[in-house]
Amino acid sequence: MVVRLIDSSSTTPRIAEVFSDHSILEAMLGFELSLARAEASLGVIPQDAARAIENAASPDLYNASALAADSLRSATPSIPFVKALTEQVKKIDASAAGFVHWGATSQDVADTAIILVLKKSRDILHEDLARLDHSLSQLSERHAKTPMLARTLLQAALPTSFGLKAAGWLGAIRRNHSRLHAAFQEALILQFGGAAGTLASLGDKGTKLGKALAQELGLGYPEAPWHTHRDRLAALMCALGVTAGSLGKMARDISLLSQNEVAEAAEPTAEGRGGSSAMPHKQNPVGCTLALASAYRVPGLVSTFLSSMVQEHERAVGGWQSEWATISAIVQATSLAAASMAEVAEGLTVNAVRMRENIAATQGTIFAERATILLANALGRDAARKIVEKAVQQSVASNGEFVEVLAEMPEVRKVLNAAILKDLQSPEGYLGVAEEFRRSLVNSKPRHNSPDRKP
Amino acid sequence: MVVRLIDSSSTTPRIAEVFSDHSILEAMLGFELSLARAEASLGVIPQDAARAIENAASPDLYNASALAADSLRSATPSIPFVKALTEQVKKIDASAAGFVHWGATSQDVADTAIILVLKKSRDILHEDLARLDHSLSQLSERHAKTPMLARTLLQAALPTSFGLKAAGWLGAIRRNHSRLHAAFQEALILQFGGAAGTLASLGDKGTKLGKALAQELGLGYPEAPWHTHRDRLAALMCALGVTAGSLGKMARDISLLSQNEVAEAAEPTAEGRGGSSAMPHKQNPVGCTLALASAYRVPGLVSTFLSSMVQEHERAVGGWQSEWATISAIVQATSLAAASMAEVAEGLTVNAVRMRENIAATQGTIFAERATILLANALGRDAARKIVEKAVQQSVASNGEFVEVLAEMPEVRKVLNAAILKDLQSPEGYLGVAEEFRRSLVNSKPRHNSPDRKP
Amino acid sequence: MVVRLIDSSSTTPRIAEVFSDHSILEAMLGFELSLARAEASLGVIPQDAARAIENAASPDLYNASALAADSLRSATPSIPFVKALTEQVKKIDASAAGFVHWGATSQDVADTAIILVLKKSRDILHEDLARLDHSLSQLSERHAKTPMLARTLLQAALPTSFGLKAAGWLGAIRRNHSRLHAAFQEALILQFGGAAGTLASLGDKGTKLGKALAQELGLGYPEAPWHTHRDRLAALMCALGVTAGSLGKMARDISLLSQNEVAEAAEPTAEGRGGSSAMPHKQNPVGCTLALASAYRVPGLVSTFLSSMVQEHERAVGGWQSEWATISAIVQATSLAAASMAEVAEGLTVNAVRMRENIAATQGTIFAERATILLANALGRDAARKIVEKAVQQSVASNGEFVEVLAEMPEVRKVLNAAILKDLQSPEGYLGVAEEFRRSLVNSKPRHNSPDRKP
Amino acid sequence: MVVRLIDSSSTTPRIAEVFSDHSILEAMLGFELSLARAEASLGVIPQDAARAIENAASPDLYNASALAADSLRSATPSIPFVKALTEQVKKIDASAAGFVHWGATSQDVADTAIILVLKKSRDILHEDLARLDHSLSQLSERHAKTPMLARTLLQAALPTSFGLKAAGWLGAIRRNHSRLHAAFQEALILQFGGAAGTLASLGDKGTKLGKALAQELGLGYPEAPWHTHRDRLAALMCALGVTAGSLGKMARDISLLSQNEVAEAAEPTAEGRGGSSAMPHKQNPVGCTLALASAYRVPGLVSTFLSSMVQEHERAVGGWQSEWATISAIVQATSLAAASMAEVAEGLTVNAVRMRENIAATQGTIFAERATILLANALGRDAARKIVEKAVQQSVASNGEFVEVLAEMPEVRKVLNAAILKDLQSPEGYLGVAEEFRRSLVNSKPRHNSPDRKP
Repeated sequence: MVVRLIDSSSTTPRIAEVFSDHSILEAMLGFELSLARAEASLGVIPQDAARAIENAASPDLYNASALAADSLRSATPSIPFVKALTEQVKKIDASAAGFVHWGATSQDVADTAIILVLKKSRDILHEDLARLDHSLSQLSERHAKTPMLARTLLQAALPTSFGLKAAGWLGAIRRNHSRLHAAFQEALILQFGGAAGTLASLGDKGTKLGKALAQELGLGYPEAPWHTHRDRLAALMCALGVTAGSLGKMARDISLLSQNEVAEAAEPTAEGRGGSSAMPHKQNPVGCTLALASAYRVPGLVSTFLSSMVQEHERAVGGWQSEWATISAIVQATSLAAASMAEVAEGLTVNAVRMRENIAATQGTIFAERATILLANALGRDAARKIVEKAVQQSVASNGEFVEVLAEMPEVRKVLNAAILKDLQSPEGYLGVAEEFRRSLVNSKPRHNSPDRKP
Repeated sequence: MVVRLIDSSSTTPRIAEVFSDHSILEAMLGFELSLARAEASLGVIPQDAARAIENAASPDLYNASALAADSLRSATPSIPFVKALTEQVKKIDASAAGFVHWGATSQDVADTAIILVLKKSRDILHEDLARLDHSLSQLSERHAKTPMLARTLLQAALPTSFGLKAAGWLGAIRRNHSRLHAAFQEALILQFGGAAGTLASLGDKGTKLGKALAQELGLGYPEAPWHTHRDRLAALMCALGVTAGSLGKMARDISLLSQNEVAEAAEPTAEGRGGSSAMPHKQNPVGCTLALASAYRVPGLVSTFLSSMVQEHERAVGGWQSEWATISAIVQATSLAAASMAEVAEGLTVNAVRMRENIAATQGTIFAERATILLANALGRDAARKIVEKAVQQSVASNGEFVEVLAEMPEVRKVLNAAILKDLQSPEGYLGVAEEFRRSLVNSKPRHNSPDRKP
Repeated sequence: MVVRLIDSSSTTPRIAEVFSDHSILEAMLGFELSLARAEASLGVIPQDAARAIENAASPDLYNASALAADSLRSATPSIPFVKALTEQVKKIDASAAGFVHWGATSQDVADTAIILVLKKSRDILHEDLARLDHSLSQLSERHAKTPMLARTLLQAALPTSFGLKAAGWLGAIRRNHSRLHAAFQEALILQFGGAAGTLASLGDKGTKLGKALAQELGLGYPEAPWHTHRDRLAALMCALGVTAGSLGKMARDISLLSQNEVAEAAEPTAEGRGGSSAMPHKQNPVGCTLALASAYRVPGLVSTFLSSMVQEHERAVGGWQSEWATISAIVQATSLAAASMAEVAEGLTVNAVRMRENIAATQGTIFAERATILLANALGRDAARKIVEKAVQQSVASNGEFVEVLAEMPEVRKVLNAAILKDLQSPEGYLGVAEEFRRSLVNSKPRHNSPDRKP
Repeated sequence: MVVRLIDSSSTTPRIAEVFSDHSILEAMLGFELSLARAEASLGVIPQDAARAIENAASPDLYNASALAADSLRSATPSIPFVKALTEQVKKIDASAAGFVHWGATSQDVADTAIILVLKKSRDILHEDLARLDHSLSQLSERHAKTPMLARTLLQAALPTSFGLKAAGWLGAIRRNHSRLHAAFQEALILQFGGAAGTLASLGDKGTKLGKALAQELGLGYPEAPWHTHRDRLAALMCALGVTAGSLGKMARDISLLSQNEVAEAAEPTAEGRGGSSAMPHKQNPVGCTLALASAYRVPGLVSTFLSSMVQEHERAVGGWQSEWATISAIVQATSLAAASMAEVAEGLTVNAVRMRENIAATQGTIFAERATILLANALGRDAARKIVEKAVQQSVASNGEFVEVLAEMPEVRKVLNAAILKDLQSPEGYLGVAEEFRRSLVNSKPRHNSPDRKP
């Protein structure tokens, strides 16, 4: 069992697996196993002890739910976990049991385990963001010249291109991807400080051992233990939070474009996807819905993480213990949003005809600014503005085309010829530098792919 | 399996059970079953169909994890659930399958299910808050006359009594209990509106059926469906949030009193409770730690719920779908905090001797205000203040007793006799109306127990 | 100067005035003045002292900005404020200066001042919510029979009535109004406990004086001081938060209805309201925008307040000091939202013709559920569903009317006559119990107006 | 007037000035002025018009409060601002008025203004963080060898050094400083896109003009306008949020060390700083209090910013309009925290004697782990543990020194000689690699000072 009913709309099976009991046990055991190996290689504990610990390091030997319940007696799963591991090792080699968790403290194993879990999450996120980047680039290129309404405060403003709109989403995703990359790189480090963050029980071998352990686990080695300095994790949670926000923005846009009355875009359909039991005519934007649900949830969770940073002295009373649930929820929600929007982008239907119809439905009033500029050259700004405002009002009142109203105004006909008036409401003619902006976004170099960064 | 490792420090097995797959399936099936019964009794569907649905209404017949995973295709677990139920019913009685979920919409079953789950949660919360009320009342009575330091900004201020301190915690818990009671009463209502909130497919029988269904489920019947009006649920989440805050305040206080250097209180000890693997001398305040972890988590979750209230038209895109995870986390965290603090209060060790020693360690400087008042009668406020400030400074500088310093000042000896000076630093003599306040709190009548409220 | 540029979109001049320096000084002076009066009447301080304090109690005598800056040296404005007041009193009557703030602590004046400010806020909120209640009731009655699309996940679902939609908003506002009323009533209480919450310096006169002071200020008198028990304030902040959420939901709905492509509603227009400098054709939904801005802001602020409830011992280190800015922001934002939506509701343009057109634009597919029910009577559920799904698909594919497609299917014609088919897509015929629900909401009795509650 | 009473404990006069009306007007005028200059230099508007606009660009010519109040009619201050500027220009040169704000949209000036304000904030923050870095480095060096208790869950754990503790704070501050540096660098960019983000009214000169404008204002030039893509601002708000969290952690630690019962550290005293009106003996940790107040406030505000990222299409309905108040509060609170903790660090009193006394007060039980290791060499882990646990219990029960209890156990005396036992509870002997960690932190190179980064 991986996904629980209560977590419907909150995770995907793939990312849920990373936060499953099996995965967390694996990470905790991975820490203890690697610690034993590193200690054995430096002569801190006997090689035999390390082998016994290795043999006990299988998740299936442990009852995760019992450990979770027991953790209430110590406010950390590490204590029942180390006890259970010690008992397993004892079964294999009684003399080895005393060397389990040697030199480490509860928080060392708990923190390093969550870091290992985050490392697995990174790969999934990376993949979905890369899919999204690819699809959005394609969408943007394909629709470089597809005019559509730009909408401000949900009102028709001026024309833009769908290519630029897609490139805007892309730019945000790409920047987030770079920030996430940097934040993961900073956060994926070992926690190893012993009971007081001094590795006192290891004498002068502490840092040597720490470095070996970090290498064994494929993690960075920090300047010092960070038991109550959670800024690197907080920065990572924030990077996820900003990503969820950008994904939510894209989802909001597409869900608005998918309204029956707008109908400019539609999520991919598939057997059973987005349907309604009672209403066969419905096609719900489920991917956007899931991404928006994530965008609602993540900000408060980030806030929780930031609040919990105020951790007392060398181990917190509450702040630290609140983190696992928060991290798990932030990562899963953001991952769900990324996966959902990747799927949406890959199968998005774009209705260029409807886009043009929606522009036409404004009856040209969105070209009022353009008309003002054209008239201003000949008549001055103020006069131009007054004429245009009058024409807009008349157009709205009479339900007539703005350009036709204009064309009937003598003061306009004096200065604008028929050809110019005809062209006035061509969307393509009033896109400004949309295409420059679009190319600039699509061709922007993701910082995390630059040669001086390791993948 | 009920509690997951990632939820260590976030829940108790008892409340986790309420949010388990089994419990949620039971609630969803409970809705469908009761709907079928009510519909059969009103002749809306055949009695045989209701019986077949009843026979399919066993949680064990369903694969919750598969339903959860499938819910990503519709952004709600209701659709795969109704499909699975329909298939089960079909196996029992093919002609009954068409009557499953008759007249209802996805949100009707999902919302009512979560309401039924909340109803179960209420009983657990009620029990733990009642335990806490009882223990704190006893603690307060027992220590009505135990003087201790009042501390402001973590600095010694004046004396107070531990009885008043405990009564302060009690007062907050009792008020929260009353607010929770009212919020549950308002929120525990049926959701039943059909696809558009009009029960259109039931003709004119909608409200009659709704009332029967509400009665069947033991829920209130609202004026109208509330698909996108989430204020009652939000108010309940807020009441839980305020409760978590009050529990956190109590936990913060006790964890501070438990510091080695203060040592005025200690959590109950028990085999394996609060110990440290590496440090046998430690006694960690685990109950307070868990309550504080909850107090860190709940505010952000409440914020999420409030954010998600902005739900579009007749069913939201994202706001609604974000709720389950949030509700589940708020209820479980608050419940864990209540259970933890009940356990702490029931077994709290209070060290009255140490309380007195900590007062004494201030060397009487905390009685400066009292000395000022006594001197002011004879010398006026200004003169009194200056003398006392001088005496305090001298006492601190010389590491001497404040009263002795005072007693050596001629201007003081002129107006205060030896007996008064001797009594000056008796904590009992400067408790003001602490006992009046204490009794007023302990004897306050919880609003939710008043005769005009149903339990 | 009342509203600052940085607070554009965050407040109204009217509610900003309540949180202005003048208003806060007035409230702080009101506390000190009333304290002096009550003390003089009980013989605790001389009548002359009370008179001198009264004469110094004019806000214009104080430099608020200097007090605010000085407050950084004590982390509370009370200390510089009491010092400045004492100096003013000294100018009037040197012998009275020593009696300023007698028996009170910094938090007593700061907390009571904010409570007095909240009392002023209540009246403004009450007024705007009452306006909203009135307008929405009228809108709902007027449009009791105006059919419109119900939309779920932003997709056309089934018909509903605008009367029910408006009644839904009304119901939420009315429930919030009742909750706010109760929360204000609980929170509008005196804070008066002296340095340690025991009123020690007042001997045995503490509670007698406290009651007199509460009466003087028109506030309730609590069981005990509540310096670090902030649950009543927190509950009030939450009630405001839920209200902001409900106002945001209404604003989201109206902003969506105002889209050019939907055009079913429009905010009131007025000279200069909602215009765009560059685009004369635009009519921006500014009231909804402001209410939505508030709905974005308030949840995080409520979360802050809940977080800050974990206050240490008898006065907090940080939690308390964080409150003023948070309370001020929550109240002003919610008040702005209420005022904005009252204005929107009072002048809302409802386009019933367009509502009907938008229903028609679905080409009858939204009546698929209805068709299924009609066919099921004769053909059974399964057969009916299959036919209807086929007809919907065909209607969508051919861009034809659903009913016409149906009418051409022989199996349909066999069981449904022309009259029934003709009526099938009449919105009025498929509104279920919408009108029952609507009336139930409009006629619901606000709890805060019931005779057993004081206004 | 700069700081308002309601903002006591929320800002400093220095950073408040940056968000004052004058400063914001200056920034808005700066945008319009630079735009006019850039446009004149490219021949887009006449040089005379630019000069007239320049002459109208003085903040003192405008009534900020009136603009703020008027902004409620358009949900942005830009519209009344541009109107007022146009009127001013008209007074100077009527023909120039039409060229005010040419080609720009309301959001261009509002966004760029807030970016310019953020730029000013950066310098203040940088300065305070640099002060803090300097002071903490010095504190750490000075106390490299000062032993003190490490405390986990507020319980005495093992010895550490104050040098390492200070270096831990330093490390977090330095990392935050680097992250802030990067986030400011990314966010300090021009907003300039015109009504639809295409600069349509400027024909093909849009990007050329944009680059000139960015250079004029000393801002970066982005790939494209970012009207509804707020990720860069969000990332900056997050970096501030994480910084506030780290400052709060430091403040919590110092406030705990300042408790009378611990007394290991004290904030600097100064005339009137941290005093209490009623209690002359008190020395309140006001700097920590203010920093903690900020740490309570900022997380919820960050959450608000993240929530508001879901902005519709080309200009948001609510999300954007909610930002100013949020940004202003986050920056001011974080800045206050940095300034407060810089002041605290610069004047911190460290009581090394008391640190040693608090270690001694544990009666050696904190050396239990060390005793276990020493005994384990000779007796094996299990036997060693049992002996030590017994000794700890006996020491606690008899209120005796742990080492003396040990020394009386025959099994211990057999394997540990008197010299080893004597040394056992020397804190200096059990600091592990604390000094290595400390140096590693103090010598860590802030990334933002590396040569490949511009200051």
